[in-house]
Amino acid sequence: MSRVLPEPEALAAAVSGRDRLALAQALNLLDDRRPAARQCAAAFLDALPAAKLETGGHLIGITGPPGAGKSSLTASLIQVWRQRGLKVAILAVDPSSPITGGALLGDRLRMHASGADREVFIRSLACRGEFGGLSAEVWPMSLAMLAAFDIVLVETVGVGQKEIDVSKMTDTTCFVAQPASGDSIQFLKAGIMEVPHVIVVNKEDIGMAARKTLSELKNTLRRQMDPEGWQVPALSASAALGSGIDKLADALDSHRQWLLGQGQFTARRQRCQAEWLVKHLREEFGRYGMGLLGGEEALFNALADAPRRSPIAEYERLRERVIQAIKTHD
Amino acid sequence: MSRVLPEPEALAAAVSGRDRLALAQALNLLDDRRPAARQCAAAFLDALPAAKLETGGHLIGITGPPGAGKSSLTASLIQVWRQRGLKVAILAVDPSSPITGGALLGDRLRMHASGADREVFIRSLACRGEFGGLSAEVWPMSLAMLAAFDIVLVETVGVGQKEIDVSKMTDTTCFVAQPASGDSIQFLKAGIMEVPHVIVVNKEDIGMAARKTLSELKNTLRRQMDPEGWQVPALSASAALGSGIDKLADALDSHRQWLLGQGQFTARRQRCQAEWLVKHLREEFGRYGMGLLGGEEALFNALADAPRRSPIAEYERLRERVIQAIKTHD
Repeated sequence: MSRVLPEPEALAAAVSGRDRLALAQALNLLDDRRPAARQCAAAFLDALPAAKLETGGHLIGITGPPGAGKSSLTASLIQVWRQRGLKVAILAVDPSSPITGGALLGDRLRMHASGADREVFIRSLACRGEFGGLSAEVWPMSLAMLAAFDIVLVETVGVGQKEIDVSKMTDTTCFVAQPASGDSIQFLKAGIMEVPHVIVVNKEDIGMAARKTLSELKNTLRRQMDPEGWQVPALSASAALGSGIDKLADALDSHRQWLLGQGQFTARRQRCQAEWLVKHLREEFGRYGMGLLGGEEALFNALADAPRRSPIAEYERLRERVIQAIKTHD
Repeated sequence: MSRVLPEPEALAAAVSGRDRLALAQALNLLDDRRPAARQCAAAFLDALPAAKLETGGHLIGITGPPGAGKSSLTASLIQVWRQRGLKVAILAVDPSSPITGGALLGDRLRMHASGADREVFIRSLACRGEFGGLSAEVWPMSLAMLAAFDIVLVETVGVGQKEIDVSKMTDTTCFVAQPASGDSIQFLKAGIMEVPHVIVVNKEDIGMAARKTLSELKNTLRRQMDPEGWQVPALSASAALGSGIDKLADALDSHRQWLLGQGQFTARRQRCQAEWLVKHLREEFGRYGMGLLGGEEALFNALADAPRRSPIAEYERLRERVIQAIKTHD
């Protein structure tokens, strides 16, 4: 990689103006680990309009087991959002996703995006293997996309990811349940899976099994408390029939409105960034390094309460602190 | 904790003689993080009979989503193994397990164990939270149990665990599938879940759904290759009816026989230990520390090929190497 680095302010202005080539270039920059690129990326993120990063757009995570229909629901949601005049960006980090995997639906999505509609942008993050930090760059990339689009949707696998848990780095998380599938419900019940903000059973067209799963989910959710007081809705939809998609889009937006109404929206964005910083640091320096920073919980709380900073600059600052502490530690 | 530390050789002799109190004391010792206790634990493990640790007994991991019936299958397997004259120890690290959670079945199992039958030993590992190293001590504890019992069974949750993946630290892993549940199959297909050595669909008494899941699993497995060439069997069983349990015990034993026949048994134990060492080190020192040791893959290969050493002594040796490298690194 001997690419010439872009001029950060000009790149930020072009991205904010929804220049597709500029956004693609920015995402590559955010994925570039060379020190000079990191500096450039930090300056680029600093130059993005602060208001958009703090309260703009809606950052949604869509998650669920492979085969549950995340990609087909995503395709249907894109249509609904476009009908509502919203501009949509998709970031796919699911290793089993047809978007990433290149299957038929992914091609349809890409066609849809790159062809007629200039207000839909799709990017998939290649899997770098178990220890390569599959989704370490998801948070900075999400911010870059938020500067240009109304909806940024991050697609990931629901259970079993070994890397950064993307569901904690979005405003709203949506879980797509497989009809006639008990595992996810059991994981929810046992507290092994994070409780999402919206649950949808896809494939309501297949009938009984979907209705049964929906009613089981509703029963489970009745006994679950969202720690912030949000009542998690369980819906059904069919990407095949196009049914329930409007209601799903409404439910996702309701959670955003609820966060705004509670005065929690900016705080949640800040917690997302704190989550990303802490997990990213732990991946790099382990328990030993986190101990040198005073422990994960204290660090998370300090970061969540701090004023907003560019995530890459902040990461590099913390990284320096760990390395200094390592040098001087006995 | 101001417990007096035991004399390691005497403790090892008592554990090898299946002294239940000594084993309980040894497991507490292996869970004790104080430096003096670590030294004592290393000496204890060194004093266990090497042959038993290298080729003795059968270390089995049982895994699957919560609610699939791991605990009831375990209870049924215990009966079959006892009828075959085998002595059984159980280590439960599943946070949703009724054994750990203290539900009815757990009580029944505990009663069974502590009451009439002195040849069944059960220990549950308390969950220490997301970052506390839930199962960091599973490997040394498994070795201590192997010194005294014919079967050591480790029970964990199948997907979604954030800590050390116990399924890579057993001779044989058995996955318990939930009938009428597509998620696990999808995770298998997508390569998100490790392929186990034996798959069993529990609750065959519920009929159609179990049969359908079994045939889906068989179809999936036909397209999956075990990297070592073992043909993964998919069975059905019912803990409630007691059916299929004998065949399940046979299938588990077949995998052990197969490893022995291939001359792979000792090598697999050594790889388990290498896996444990590498993951444990990464948890403590992150990517940064692993880089100082030459990278995870090189470290794993070197450890897998090295002669067997006591895992705690080996861990402390590697830990010292990382800390020295950190001090001298620029």
